[in-house]
Amino acid sequence: MSDPRKVLPGAKRGDRRVRVGRPLARYFRYEAPGVLSAKLAAEEPTTPLGWALGRIRGVVFGRPLASEADLAERLPKWKALPVFSSDALSSVAYGPEAAMYTLLAAGTIAITWLMPITGVILLVLLLITLSYRQTIRAYPNGGGSYIVARANLGELPGLVAAAALLTDYVLTVSVSVSAGVFNLASAFPPLQPIYVPLIVVAILGVMLVNLRGIRQSGSILAWPTYIFLGSTLLVVAIGLVRVVLGSPPHVTGVTPYPVPLEGLGILLVMRAFANGCSALTGTEAVANGVPAFKPPESQNARTTMVMMSALLAAMLFGIGYLAVVSGAVPSAQLESVLSQIGRATVGLSPLYYLLQISTMGVLVIAAETSFADFPRVSALLAKDGYFPSRFAFRGERLAFDSGIVALAIISIGLVIIFGGHVESLIPLYALGVYTAFTLSQTGMVHHWFVDRSPGWRRSALLNGLGAVATGVVVIVFAITKFTEGAWIIILVVPILVALMLFVHREYEAASHGMGVRVDAHIPGPDEQRHVVVVAPMFSRAVVQAIRVGEMMSRKVEVVHVTADLAEGELFRGQVEAHLAGTQVVIVESPYRTLVNPFVRYLETSRAEHAGEVTVVLIPEYVPRHWWDRALYNQNARRIREALVGRRDIVVLDVPYRREEPS
Amino acid sequence: MSDPRKVLPGAKRGDRRVRVGRPLARYFRYEAPGVLSAKLAAEEPTTPLGWALGRIRGVVFGRPLASEADLAERLPKWKALPVFSSDALSSVAYGPEAAMYTLLAAGTIAITWLMPITGVILLVLLLITLSYRQTIRAYPNGGGSYIVARANLGELPGLVAAAALLTDYVLTVSVSVSAGVFNLASAFPPLQPIYVPLIVVAILGVMLVNLRGIRQSGSILAWPTYIFLGSTLLVVAIGLVRVVLGSPPHVTGVTPYPVPLEGLGILLVMRAFANGCSALTGTEAVANGVPAFKPPESQNARTTMVMMSALLAAMLFGIGYLAVVSGAVPSAQLESVLSQIGRATVGLSPLYYLLQISTMGVLVIAAETSFADFPRVSALLAKDGYFPSRFAFRGERLAFDSGIVALAIISIGLVIIFGGHVESLIPLYALGVYTAFTLSQTGMVHHWFVDRSPGWRRSALLNGLGAVATGVVVIVFAITKFTEGAWIIILVVPILVALMLFVHREYEAASHGMGVRVDAHIPGPDEQRHVVVVAPMFSRAVVQAIRVGEMMSRKVEVVHVTADLAEGELFRGQVEAHLAGTQVVIVESPYRTLVNPFVRYLETSRAEHAGEVTVVLIPEYVPRHWWDRALYNQNARRIREALVGRRDIVVLDVPYRREEPS
Repeated sequence: MSDPRKVLPGAKRGDRRVRVGRPLARYFRYEAPGVLSAKLAAEEPTTPLGWALGRIRGVVFGRPLASEADLAERLPKWKALPVFSSDALSSVAYGPEAAMYTLLAAGTIAITWLMPITGVILLVLLLITLSYRQTIRAYPNGGGSYIVARANLGELPGLVAAAALLTDYVLTVSVSVSAGVFNLASAFPPLQPIYVPLIVVAILGVMLVNLRGIRQSGSILAWPTYIFLGSTLLVVAIGLVRVVLGSPPHVTGVTPYPVPLEGLGILLVMRAFANGCSALTGTEAVANGVPAFKPPESQNARTTMVMMSALLAAMLFGIGYLAVVSGAVPSAQLESVLSQIGRATVGLSPLYYLLQISTMGVLVIAAETSFADFPRVSALLAKDGYFPSRFAFRGERLAFDSGIVALAIISIGLVIIFGGHVESLIPLYALGVYTAFTLSQTGMVHHWFVDRSPGWRRSALLNGLGAVATGVVVIVFAITKFTEGAWIIILVVPILVALMLFVHREYEAASHGMGVRVDAHIPGPDEQRHVVVVAPMFSRAVVQAIRVGEMMSRKVEVVHVTADLAEGELFRGQVEAHLAGTQVVIVESPYRTLVNPFVRYLETSRAEHAGEVTVVLIPEYVPRHWWDRALYNQNARRIREALVGRRDIVVLDVPYRREEPS
Repeated sequence: MSDPRKVLPGAKRGDRRVRVGRPLARYFRYEAPGVLSAKLAAEEPTTPLGWALGRIRGVVFGRPLASEADLAERLPKWKALPVFSSDALSSVAYGPEAAMYTLLAAGTIAITWLMPITGVILLVLLLITLSYRQTIRAYPNGGGSYIVARANLGELPGLVAAAALLTDYVLTVSVSVSAGVFNLASAFPPLQPIYVPLIVVAILGVMLVNLRGIRQSGSILAWPTYIFLGSTLLVVAIGLVRVVLGSPPHVTGVTPYPVPLEGLGILLVMRAFANGCSALTGTEAVANGVPAFKPPESQNARTTMVMMSALLAAMLFGIGYLAVVSGAVPSAQLESVLSQIGRATVGLSPLYYLLQISTMGVLVIAAETSFADFPRVSALLAKDGYFPSRFAFRGERLAFDSGIVALAIISIGLVIIFGGHVESLIPLYALGVYTAFTLSQTGMVHHWFVDRSPGWRRSALLNGLGAVATGVVVIVFAITKFTEGAWIIILVVPILVALMLFVHREYEAASHGMGVRVDAHIPGPDEQRHVVVVAPMFSRAVVQAIRVGEMMSRKVEVVHVTADLAEGELFRGQVEAHLAGTQVVIVESPYRTLVNPFVRYLETSRAEHAGEVTVVLIPEYVPRHWWDRALYNQNARRIREALVGRRDIVVLDVPYRREEPS
């Protein structure tokens, strides 16, 4: 074996790149001259406390995943379906009912209008699905509304789409988890006093599962969604068979919910339609999540999108039809329409209870779609500089931790502010979604007109139809829901957009100011320099700073600001006794302030050191524990704040931490 | 004129001390070689914003005062009396009434017991006064319970006395300001809805006045105290004259407050005595505040102490006597005994209303005694290392700002927590005061036995009598008030003492670890060194850090940790293009963490640099505004935390602030 300290193969003799040898073997893999790759061991905590915390983290979140594990973390279609469709699929539990509730105002007979309305909604769903298939084809790396609108329509439409979507995701989490827990607490009244804490715990639970990584959350959350799908479709099928066999289910024992009566006019039907359209929120999740699919990503995403739409359509049609046939109606007993249909169709059988329990479960899990997409959208925004950069950073488990935690915190905040009564938020959130849909699909039309790849006319047509359909929904929404709270979205979205533009401007300015320009004045190693140590007292921290100063200049000046000249002379004596040859300046400050007299001294003494760079060394005592911080003053920080960024002054913090007393 | 850059007179040729010249003239006065004294101009803010804030501060708090202005800030006796006695004097407004309220339980006839009880209280007052005169003589620099108990009885008794006093001061502020505002709100019912905010504003007002410095607060607060004194003594005098003339005042129109009846036993009399003793709280303030008096401090303080006790005794006796004679009684109408006496003596005359209004005023101003003493006691504790050091720092106006602000915050907190209903706190706070009294006077007895200066026997006797008297009060309190809340004090005081001991231990450990020992390992200027710059990206901050590194070593190693090797090679290219000769190491971190792989790299590469000191330069981007902080990550701080305090590693923060974009 050759000497491991020797230059490694591939490095030329005299190569200035690092020479790596045996000591690296434990923690690093040698890649090329001057290039190392950290092993998992290097990632592990370096202190016993950190190690213990790391173990706990490992149990809760799983072992860290290397970036190349990304592919293994991808979702197969059967896991992607629950992750990205739970939002859309769960909305059959409330979408048709919301439309019926509106129709009820014109009498129970008006509920027959549910079928034509459902027909139009299914048409919109078809157009959205066809349209998004085109989008996925064109944007195989993820074609959410933000990307598409920004690429084709420009910055502002992109940000509007992003803001609308992010708002929607937050609302979805708050509303769906609250609805799920509400159902649970209705079934088990003893839970009612801890209703809000339960919601918070449920949101934190979904958050933790997501911090483990999307693949694991897919596994954990897949089954409840499939059970819901299975039981709902089975009930629908049995109901349809009974209709065919001539014994249609019939709902008994409910009285209609008392609502103020009004005539069956166009506005009422439009409102019912708008409410029903809330069943389609969440359908864009698949397009946003393309990079989370196993390859071929684009193909798998398109298949999943079609499957989701087909399941959604089947359930919407079945529930709508059976509701009308069986005479289900939003009831004064607060029994849900889905429950009425189930009861009428299969009686109080185990299947009925399975339907009820899985409905609760899927409502909570609907939050999963938001947890899958919110972090992705915010990571894209962070990458483009519209969000703090930490949102683009993937944590140990390859999840976008910051986005996941932020979503949880904001939606918990909403729940707490509204005391868990978030029903009033429901009318809000479809407006944002459909705005994003419309922007995205309009962008796609533009895309195809520029792209003109084979089949572009057909794609443009499909996207155009989708844009028109969702655009109509937006208009209907804006007209019928403005006073019900849609105006809040019209307030929140511009504020979010303004914030994102502000963040972007700050990053732009920072990168402009931080970019290395040729004319930037940065002191070179050979310039004359004037090295100053500011010393509040004589301590080891100060001695260390003086020693560092001596590395840079033979002549170090120690400045001591004091309110008491006698104490100052004592200080001078201490320094001169320990560090002969150090030049001490005592500045008396009769007003007992430290920072300003020091800054003024520095300014005036620069006159004597014209043309030199002044290096100011600030010794800083670093307490061992956070609780010690209150015991020490912030003077080091304040001096630094006053001096950093000045021309010809280089500030250096010299932190010093005491050894543990022996 | 000689060249101002020449060595100044008094400095020997070749003297290494600083040479100061003309440029200093604006901000500094030359004192001696290497010694400057800052003028007020040097103290002034260096930025426009700082200047504007300084102006506002000047208007609110007054111009900064130099340390030598301390003497001018001293209090003449006529200002010291209200500052240090307002607490004690104001307690005549509730002390006798509290004793009567207790006696009422044995029937109105039992109220005649008030006179013997008042007699005993006056005896205790006499003993305390004589005792504290001895203390002031022995401790001319301030003889508060903490100093005396600590010097003579040891650390723990000193801290117990200090904790008891600090607790008492906080309670005094909460209780007295609440009582004053309660009276005000009773007189003006529209103020009742903003009762708590009014208390908070009143406390903040007293705080602001105190931040202006004790002299100004003495001026502002003197008159209400004197008006209260004058009107009370006048009413008492008129009442006594009427008794002598044979037409004693007679209270009409009140019914006794309904209280549960009990027999007139020894325990009831003791409880009445304990309640009456609350009138003596605050009498130690003068002894604590000796350094605030004009010279001769000790003499002036003793005179003030005697004046205060005489005034207090006169009022207590007069009010007690007139209460019994006139038939005043704690009333179901909630009219105070003092008001009844006033009404009976001088009718609803202007003097009566003056008495009423000045009573309210003096109750608020009683807080002033706490504001004068709490900061002094906490400054003493800080000087001895039992309190964070900032409490010992005198602000621009020579006041102990931290103590004043802390007192205001804690007492506001109490008021808010109790919703302004702090009556329940009243029984608590005399226990602490009398404990401190007893400890202090016991300490004085010990002092005289050691001191044996002329007259020591007499002094020891007086202090001993005082200690016995207050000790008896403590025992009576503990017996009669334990269940009423005295146990809270018995809980709070040990916690405070434990905290102070903890702070002291931390400071001791820090000074032990920071003391400059001969054997301390601090790298010398000539040692071999290995200079490493950790670079998260290529920016001006990194270039600056590299330049600083080049001041210390010809060979600087730049370490770049990245999750993406391609990005790493890009970084290498940038560094090599701009800074030829810099050695770049790329560390790939597949788990996307930065800190631990860097620390591990440093550890392993130290093996190659055995015997050298490793200097780690951490470029740190300093945002221009606080709101920008969320946009940048804390990696610099985390690396520093991981490395500082390690043997043979010197950490240097290199802060860089971008120039404003032009």
